[in-house]
Amino acid sequence: MKLGVCYYPEHWPKSRWQQDAQEMREIGLEYVRIGEFSWSTIEPEPGELHWEWLDEALDILHEHGLKVILGTPTATPPKWLVDRHPSMLAKDEQGRIRHFGSRRHYTFASLDYRDECRRMVTLMAERYGQHPAVVSWQTDNEYGCHDTVLSYAEADLMAFRLWLKDKYGTIDRLNTAWGNVFWSMDYRSFEEVDLPNLTVTEANPSHRLDFQRCCSDQVVAFNKLQVDILRQYSKGRDLVHNYMGFFTAFDHHKVGQDLDVASWDTYPLGFLDQEAIYSQEEKQTYLRVGHPDFGAFHHDLYRGCGKGRLWIMEQQPGPVNWAPHNPTPAEGAVRLWTWEAFSHGAELVSYFRWRQAPFGQEQMHAGLLRPDGQGAEAAKEAAQVAQEVCDLSQVLGLNAEELMVLPKSGNVALMFDYDACWSLDIQPQSRAYRYLSWCYRVYEALRELGLSVDIVSNQAALDTYPLLVLPAQAHISKDLQARLNSYQGVLLAGPRTGSKTATYQIPDNLAPGPLANLLPLTVERVDALPEHTKPSVFGLWGEGSLCYWHEQISTDLPCLLKDHTGQPVLVGCDKHFYLGSCIDKSLLKACLVKLSEKAGLSTEYLPTGVRIRERGPLLFAFNYGQHSAHYQPDDAQILIGSESLPPAGVAIWRRDLTDNQ
Amino acid sequence: MKLGVCYYPEHWPKSRWQQDAQEMREIGLEYVRIGEFSWSTIEPEPGELHWEWLDEALDILHEHGLKVILGTPTATPPKWLVDRHPSMLAKDEQGRIRHFGSRRHYTFASLDYRDECRRMVTLMAERYGQHPAVVSWQTDNEYGCHDTVLSYAEADLMAFRLWLKDKYGTIDRLNTAWGNVFWSMDYRSFEEVDLPNLTVTEANPSHRLDFQRCCSDQVVAFNKLQVDILRQYSKGRDLVHNYMGFFTAFDHHKVGQDLDVASWDTYPLGFLDQEAIYSQEEKQTYLRVGHPDFGAFHHDLYRGCGKGRLWIMEQQPGPVNWAPHNPTPAEGAVRLWTWEAFSHGAELVSYFRWRQAPFGQEQMHAGLLRPDGQGAEAAKEAAQVAQEVCDLSQVLGLNAEELMVLPKSGNVALMFDYDACWSLDIQPQSRAYRYLSWCYRVYEALRELGLSVDIVSNQAALDTYPLLVLPAQAHISKDLQARLNSYQGVLLAGPRTGSKTATYQIPDNLAPGPLANLLPLTVERVDALPEHTKPSVFGLWGEGSLCYWHEQISTDLPCLLKDHTGQPVLVGCDKHFYLGSCIDKSLLKACLVKLSEKAGLSTEYLPTGVRIRERGPLLFAFNYGQHSAHYQPDDAQILIGSESLPPAGVAIWRRDLTDNQ
Amino acid sequence: MKLGVCYYPEHWPKSRWQQDAQEMREIGLEYVRIGEFSWSTIEPEPGELHWEWLDEALDILHEHGLKVILGTPTATPPKWLVDRHPSMLAKDEQGRIRHFGSRRHYTFASLDYRDECRRMVTLMAERYGQHPAVVSWQTDNEYGCHDTVLSYAEADLMAFRLWLKDKYGTIDRLNTAWGNVFWSMDYRSFEEVDLPNLTVTEANPSHRLDFQRCCSDQVVAFNKLQVDILRQYSKGRDLVHNYMGFFTAFDHHKVGQDLDVASWDTYPLGFLDQEAIYSQEEKQTYLRVGHPDFGAFHHDLYRGCGKGRLWIMEQQPGPVNWAPHNPTPAEGAVRLWTWEAFSHGAELVSYFRWRQAPFGQEQMHAGLLRPDGQGAEAAKEAAQVAQEVCDLSQVLGLNAEELMVLPKSGNVALMFDYDACWSLDIQPQSRAYRYLSWCYRVYEALRELGLSVDIVSNQAALDTYPLLVLPAQAHISKDLQARLNSYQGVLLAGPRTGSKTATYQIPDNLAPGPLANLLPLTVERVDALPEHTKPSVFGLWGEGSLCYWHEQISTDLPCLLKDHTGQPVLVGCDKHFYLGSCIDKSLLKACLVKLSEKAGLSTEYLPTGVRIRERGPLLFAFNYGQHSAHYQPDDAQILIGSESLPPAGVAIWRRDLTDNQ
Repeated sequence: MKLGVCYYPEHWPKSRWQQDAQEMREIGLEYVRIGEFSWSTIEPEPGELHWEWLDEALDILHEHGLKVILGTPTATPPKWLVDRHPSMLAKDEQGRIRHFGSRRHYTFASLDYRDECRRMVTLMAERYGQHPAVVSWQTDNEYGCHDTVLSYAEADLMAFRLWLKDKYGTIDRLNTAWGNVFWSMDYRSFEEVDLPNLTVTEANPSHRLDFQRCCSDQVVAFNKLQVDILRQYSKGRDLVHNYMGFFTAFDHHKVGQDLDVASWDTYPLGFLDQEAIYSQEEKQTYLRVGHPDFGAFHHDLYRGCGKGRLWIMEQQPGPVNWAPHNPTPAEGAVRLWTWEAFSHGAELVSYFRWRQAPFGQEQMHAGLLRPDGQGAEAAKEAAQVAQEVCDLSQVLGLNAEELMVLPKSGNVALMFDYDACWSLDIQPQSRAYRYLSWCYRVYEALRELGLSVDIVSNQAALDTYPLLVLPAQAHISKDLQARLNSYQGVLLAGPRTGSKTATYQIPDNLAPGPLANLLPLTVERVDALPEHTKPSVFGLWGEGSLCYWHEQISTDLPCLLKDHTGQPVLVGCDKHFYLGSCIDKSLLKACLVKLSEKAGLSTEYLPTGVRIRERGPLLFAFNYGQHSAHYQPDDAQILIGSESLPPAGVAIWRRDLTDNQ
Repeated sequence: MKLGVCYYPEHWPKSRWQQDAQEMREIGLEYVRIGEFSWSTIEPEPGELHWEWLDEALDILHEHGLKVILGTPTATPPKWLVDRHPSMLAKDEQGRIRHFGSRRHYTFASLDYRDECRRMVTLMAERYGQHPAVVSWQTDNEYGCHDTVLSYAEADLMAFRLWLKDKYGTIDRLNTAWGNVFWSMDYRSFEEVDLPNLTVTEANPSHRLDFQRCCSDQVVAFNKLQVDILRQYSKGRDLVHNYMGFFTAFDHHKVGQDLDVASWDTYPLGFLDQEAIYSQEEKQTYLRVGHPDFGAFHHDLYRGCGKGRLWIMEQQPGPVNWAPHNPTPAEGAVRLWTWEAFSHGAELVSYFRWRQAPFGQEQMHAGLLRPDGQGAEAAKEAAQVAQEVCDLSQVLGLNAEELMVLPKSGNVALMFDYDACWSLDIQPQSRAYRYLSWCYRVYEALRELGLSVDIVSNQAALDTYPLLVLPAQAHISKDLQARLNSYQGVLLAGPRTGSKTATYQIPDNLAPGPLANLLPLTVERVDALPEHTKPSVFGLWGEGSLCYWHEQISTDLPCLLKDHTGQPVLVGCDKHFYLGSCIDKSLLKACLVKLSEKAGLSTEYLPTGVRIRERGPLLFAFNYGQHSAHYQPDDAQILIGSESLPPAGVAIWRRDLTDNQ
Repeated sequence: MKLGVCYYPEHWPKSRWQQDAQEMREIGLEYVRIGEFSWSTIEPEPGELHWEWLDEALDILHEHGLKVILGTPTATPPKWLVDRHPSMLAKDEQGRIRHFGSRRHYTFASLDYRDECRRMVTLMAERYGQHPAVVSWQTDNEYGCHDTVLSYAEADLMAFRLWLKDKYGTIDRLNTAWGNVFWSMDYRSFEEVDLPNLTVTEANPSHRLDFQRCCSDQVVAFNKLQVDILRQYSKGRDLVHNYMGFFTAFDHHKVGQDLDVASWDTYPLGFLDQEAIYSQEEKQTYLRVGHPDFGAFHHDLYRGCGKGRLWIMEQQPGPVNWAPHNPTPAEGAVRLWTWEAFSHGAELVSYFRWRQAPFGQEQMHAGLLRPDGQGAEAAKEAAQVAQEVCDLSQVLGLNAEELMVLPKSGNVALMFDYDACWSLDIQPQSRAYRYLSWCYRVYEALRELGLSVDIVSNQAALDTYPLLVLPAQAHISKDLQARLNSYQGVLLAGPRTGSKTATYQIPDNLAPGPLANLLPLTVERVDALPEHTKPSVFGLWGEGSLCYWHEQISTDLPCLLKDHTGQPVLVGCDKHFYLGSCIDKSLLKACLVKLSEKAGLSTEYLPTGVRIRERGPLLFAFNYGQHSAHYQPDDAQILIGSESLPPAGVAIWRRDLTDNQ
């Protein structure tokens, strides 16, 4: 594992740059991301290009042996550029232009802005594509941040009509696919189709879903435009983008297909505070360390978006500024987060940012250095990890590169599908239902049982996994259906699986639609419940309660759980199981234990707040709890820490004891 | 009582239509509503009229003996029509155009759209006005749904200025009526008057009230336009519109004057879930059956809007899709709702809809059939009711028509006034006060005492009622004043009665204004309280607490209840009583018992969740509770059910035992 | 102390005016404010001026010996004027025009509207500047009411660009001051700068702060324009404006510099109900009398904005209409509020309004008279106060003028700074933090200890105060720094003091910035906590908990309080102390007792709900509690009331007993 940092030389006097580079090395950092917000410094006036500062910065970093991830600056076009292309601005759902004054002031669908990006990225790639310091490029920054995927401007309307024409060919096909006859919503031509905002009441969900898909595809195309240029001028460099937490507005699997590595920006405290996914109790318990599954969930998700390769591009190093409340991390939390990323396969963990800026929107966002240039708390923890990586490397007799490529796959596959997410959230039926939350809670249950999970796309090869969970795979494509039919492991399909066709209709045979041959049952109707109504559930596999979503199922399959009226809740046999309701975590875990047994996987109930992860010969344990915890694996040799884990503690064991005996 | 269903042949292949019609008959349905969303199927291109499918659908229904309620399709103009008349689109209070993409994309005030409606309704009425299947016409669909009565577009402004000119004649009269001198808001001409939205702070309440009245009158005019055409071409058919629950944005009494029957769309679970009128406890208790007074309140209200004639045009048959949460109804709930409608005078109960659509906005809205064409739960309950109606008919020795016209009036009159609703809600003084809620709670109290209520307009004949309640009759017109003066029964006037003039001013003699001769008292000032402040009340008639609204009254009338400072709360003697505060339900019931005694009406405290209703010789009991309940009337012969009512249970007795002895 | 009333002769028939004037005198009122909403009566048509009614009204008032405060009517331009200058309308943050229909329909930056105001004020001042009844002018009415300081119209943009150009001279200086390099937000000219609304995400806080400052300066300029005219035509009259409660959108100290007296409009119940600053428990406890520190806080604040002179222009006399709930005041509350204003230095208390209007937006706003012209409750209490003032005057042997100019200063200075308020609220870091709340709670703590407080601006002379509190003085100007350096009293600086430069950057030496020489410490980082996280605090000076804001401080100063990890919370020695966290009231009071001791000030813990104030030889006690309370000062002679204070009770003692011995 390598460590890195995000650096903004343009924010500081040149006289400081040498010192910065030297101090980075002293801490043990090897990678530096720069440039992604610097368009106005590069091109302060239209066509007046100032590369000299960037030349110098790159040279200094290179001289100090630092490797550079160079960002294309397209997330922050300068004011003069925006003024030249007012049509590049996005419009929000209320029809208001989203003006210049912060960042991301563009809609992905703007062809004018794409031309400007093509020009700038080409200039940059030509100049630095072969620079020895540059080992990687980051395209833009945090696609979609500040809710910028969906835009309702003229450019978006044009793009949507083209996209629809391309997809459906004729307007009649679209009318049929959307069921427009429902409220006389039929169109006579693609030119009649509008965007689905500001309608009198809810627009047709098929309309909304296709708009979401189109907007996602605009992100893919926007990214691809940059990728194509960078591939041309800067062969051999890793292309990467930095994704965000709990963000589902575009299909990350599709964007990831065009890149070499997936990275993401991890802010465990900021997200704990701002996300509705967490209860108030969780927010209180994990105030200073984040939720135990926040990092892991995204590591496993984005590794799957990155063809197996994962970086952390921005790691929270202290209090941030953008959440409703911004507490300081617990002592040791930054180290914990860093090691956990490694345990889930990260090759690189890069802190955001080097030195806290004394100005601008994020002036209260901590860095490794304080605004006055002194080291902040996180600098010490980063240095500690750097040293520990060295030590570990020696103990294991592996060099850094060998360490980086240790195996990282899990043995349980959890399918996460952006299209399913959009589909199910468009009409949640119960306001309490949210696709992402449900997937997260299934993941949490698996992980509390000590299982190592891969979060996979609907395109993933499934055969290597003894256990496969489809939490809520709304639409089952023909391709997925075929792979599921041939899948030999244990399959659990959750509520709403197979409930929609590709164009958001109810399947002719009702849910689970194409899965009815594997799971011979029919979802007759749905009981979508308020937050506080939690009917009891019990049966062969345990007892507990259900919440939010409760399907009425007719089937001859054996019933493993049923509700208090005797309606089946969990059914199945052999290797195929269907869960028709969202159930509480404790009961879900009991069921996953049963399924794991069938799949030949061993499980264990971990202490509260403790999580483990295997990677190659290494076993990691992390304590997110507020109190010390004890965890002792069998047949393992302690390398770092001990079986007594303090709060924010980390322990690492070597498991291949047989080699050492 | 007849049963019916809402049917959309245009959503299904013609090959299915025969089967559909046959199955409807098998269930026992006799009426079918069709057509109301089919404009784009009738006229897919401007002027290209496709009647053939509708001809065929009507013929098939007719062949099966089904009677058709034909809807004018004006709630869903097609896209091409909207594009031709962009000015027909409404604007919301924030000034945003409400675009095409769902339904009801028009403002009632648009003269362009009225022309298009005139054209379409004329074409339809000419073609089907004499069709033997067509026994009734429904104008448009759910006027005002999706908050479409108030619109702030140019067409609305033009209509408002004309309306004001027509009402006031000169601008000086308007200025005086509104008290525009207050903040230099005087106008020099009607052309200076704007709509009361997007003002710096609250617009003049007189301005707002007149705008609400004007918008309500646009609905009346829009409906009248269709009525006039239908009367011309389709004599003898019942004209009807389908109203909604808890909807007060237009004056239903005025719209009802132009129609033959009032109908409404009853969704007990959807409204329980979404309405702020209900407490969280009520939402939980009545989750699967709806609030015990929801249906009855609207039956009694709309019967009064329909010249005594009531239909249920859409009856919820299973989970719906549009509430925040959408649970399944309890077993028996659909039957209970159907019988209760009959007990309150409904001639027809029509379920929405025949078959659940697999596409569009309402694809999760249950029907009598599932999307796959199989029968859903409600089909069985509908068939059961159909059979029970037959049986009852036989036992009573009445044919279906005789059953339909059994007496339906109550003996307590509760005045509900749309104008009062607008007036009092414009300035609630305490955010906790809401006219509709207060009326509903008074109705609930009456009904928990076993009383049969007629909800009457301010135009209603009052003399037949021994007890009359004015919950909050803001303005007392001269006409109403005269009728109250000659009224011989017991009168209870609630807080805010007589508190406003016709143009929303405080009466010269303060509240109760024109009622001061009947109720010699003065409302000196008002204590408008927060939700949780509930001062105690006690006196000759009981004890309890008050909430929200508390008037300081000066009077020489006997004081029956007073607050803890000794201020009078309920005063009156002989037949005239004034209640100056909103009081808790238990105390309210105690007072209503006293008033009923004075009125010669007998009352009884019904078991929790149980409601009764008399209709002609029949006495009905309904159990909305979660547990079995016992109810046994005197001198009555059980016809259906028993005195032990299970949850969602129904019992029917014959009371005219004297005839049978 | 004098009493007065707000009067609207234009709302009533002339035939009533004589009676009104006579009754005012009978109650004991001496001042009348009129005219401030009367533009449309004065000038119903452009250029057609109708002064005759105002001539007559002034004459009648004069004949009855009433003194008039004449309001310029610029808060309510007539419709014709607005239609002539549509660009004068404000736009809200969402970009929507704020239309005519209520009041304050203008943006302060509109040069067109300023021209119209210049014209009208000149006409009025020419006509009445020397009228014998006119003793004072009120400019406009409640600047900023209905959120009208910040506006986002074209006129505001033009004003902002000019203001920036004037401030920064060159665009490079602006870019540097704002740190625009941060996200490529650099501008090439002032013409490129937009308003900071409708940006994709948060605009640069420096940008937002400067916009707030600019808008505040527009208010100052708007007021100055009127002041200059009035000074020219009406020499010797007091110029005043009526400020509002809890309103910080413009710099009242700056506006106050141009006027002779500060006045404010005090509505203790309306503000209790609507303000988030108060807990639900406080709202319940003080429902009918207001929060014990509401009036006093504003009296002390605005006296400091008025060069030491304070009037109450509008005193709540009964229930109002504009809060979410509008209860009636407790018996005696109006008297209590009036006397308390006097105890804090008010020369005049004027009730709003004379007679409740039966029309318009405020028809439910009580007056001294009811709408029917009869006396309301407050009239009695006003008359009682008038009589008590007479009595007191006699007992003290002082005439009314001598009474008015009794000393009014406190001995603790609390610095309140509008610029600090804007700065800190722009980025609160924890949503729970609010500058005004924190200052209010510090004030409350001081007052619960019986201290008399002056709330002072950053320009105030500090030397006379033994104790000075800077609750959160974000930016320390060079001038303030110099005065603090020479200050000899005890200084307490609270969290966030010195944390920002003048252009909203973090100081080079971190917080407390320029105060680091007085308080040698560094704020290393900030722990911004959620509402319910309240870490414990303890140390030499007490124990309790902290909330919201917790700074990590490095210093060698003695530590008087620390958190549970040992981090310092309160540090200092000798006369300089720094509090790095918001702490609970009880602990705050314990610390203020210690600091008062050091300052030589005596403190006492007052009974709950009781507050005292000294003015000259007089000592006042007020009971805001729901129960009787006992308060007995040493060496004092009771003049009004007794040491047993009933709810809403007032007691007044003479303290200069030595003179009487």
